[in-house]
Amino acid sequence: MLIGRVIGTVVATRKDEKLIGSKLMITQPLDLELNPKGDPIIAVDTVGAGIGELVVYTTGTAGRIAARKLDAPIDAAIIGIIDEMDFNKELLEGP
Amino acid sequence: MLIGRVIGTVVATRKDEKLIGSKLMITQPLDLELNPKGDPIIAVDTVGAGIGELVVYTTGTAGRIAARKLDAPIDAAIIGIIDEMDFNKELLEGP
Amino acid sequence: MLIGRVIGTVVATRKDEKLIGSKLMITQPLDLELNPKGDPIIAVDTVGAGIGELVVYTTGTAGRIAARKLDAPIDAAIIGIIDEMDFNKELLEGP
Amino acid sequence: MLIGRVIGTVVATRKDEKLIGSKLMITQPLDLELNPKGDPIIAVDTVGAGIGELVVYTTGTAGRIAARKLDAPIDAAIIGIIDEMDFNKELLEGP
Amino acid sequence: MLIGRVIGTVVATRKDEKLIGSKLMITQPLDLELNPKGDPIIAVDTVGAGIGELVVYTTGTAGRIAARKLDAPIDAAIIGIIDEMDFNKELLEGP
Repeated sequence: MLIGRVIGTVVATRKDEKLIGSKLMITQPLDLELNPKGDPIIAVDTVGAGIGELVVYTTGTAGRIAARKLDAPIDAAIIGIIDEMDFNKELLEGP
Repeated sequence: MLIGRVIGTVVATRKDEKLIGSKLMITQPLDLELNPKGDPIIAVDTVGAGIGELVVYTTGTAGRIAARKLDAPIDAAIIGIIDEMDFNKELLEGP
Repeated sequence: MLIGRVIGTVVATRKDEKLIGSKLMITQPLDLELNPKGDPIIAVDTVGAGIGELVVYTTGTAGRIAARKLDAPIDAAIIGIIDEMDFNKELLEGP
Repeated sequence: MLIGRVIGTVVATRKDEKLIGSKLMITQPLDLELNPKGDPIIAVDTVGAGIGELVVYTTGTAGRIAARKLDAPIDAAIIGIIDEMDFNKELLEGP
Repeated sequence: MLIGRVIGTVVATRKDEKLIGSKLMITQPLDLELNPKGDPIIAVDTVGAGIGELVVYTTGTAGRIAARKLDAPIDAAIIGIIDEMDFNKELLEGP
């Protein structure tokens, strides 16, 4: 899974009918310092994530599992809203 | 899923017979500002996307699901035509 | 799917027996201008692609589907020989 | 599979219910010299990995297999704690 | 599939029990000139590959297929030992 921030939505009237009812969120991948890293992806929201929220998202088949739509063409979904990240970057420093 | 623009088509007479009837669209991945990012991929059109249109595409097994061809060697498909993208990049700025 | 050029073959006597009979082609990913992009991959040929030909290849489970060998450890296959690519790069220019 | 170091955890109260009981570990991918490489991922712990430990993690469907939760939206899991890495970088030098 | 060189092994006493009996090989991805490219991955050996050997490896579900362990958390496996690579880089040159 990856860390991202929901920054918006995509509106698509003409789309795969299996996507009807799924919210397509523009989600920006982030690094540990919560800076943008790489380009945004479109993930289906499955946990009621709001714009601006810090989230965990999953990709591939796991996205369809999250959406409880195994027959939908989904390859990414938001699966958690991050309350807190605890980490120690010093663990990455050399001996 | 990812954001892209359909910029052309690929013609392949000799191909996997399961691809017959599927349109192979040259699709350029885009960043949030709709600038090209990375190299084009070939995605099967499943929503009647025209040349020049801004689309959402999906990859992997989701591509076959979109094409309703689970036994075809498809790993990418266009699943929606974008009407509108609403986002706020300021959400990515530091505190 | 991606665009590539077949530039050679790999010979492996000791290999997974499910690969017997499959041709392992060294395939160079290309950009739109048909320049090499990134490093070559090894794809199974399923359409009689010859050395030097411009092809479309697929990855992941789609590779096994293309090879009609769902129980073989294949993750990439050539699925079409490109006759023609029609595209308009001007569509990527800003307004 | 890839080599990483567990550097922390993510707390998410609102999340996919299938994730309840799974520990979400912030895992930093490493290179051979154990230096950070790329951005951290969130992997489910399946082997009792502690903060600071050097681990092997797996991605995609293999993550769900590791977690013994095929119906959970997991795409990465820690599957082993590294005791020792034996390698010879000279093998990579030219002739 | 990709080209790599086996450069070592990983020892992990605490690991997913489905990995018992599988050799975890540190495998360095290579480019066409057999120079290291990117960071090493951990692949399960399925063909008796020795340290230093030039191999073909596969990723994703294909890794589990190669290992004949569909219920193990494997996402990469060595599937062939390369005897010979025949290729013509001139095919990549412009007209």
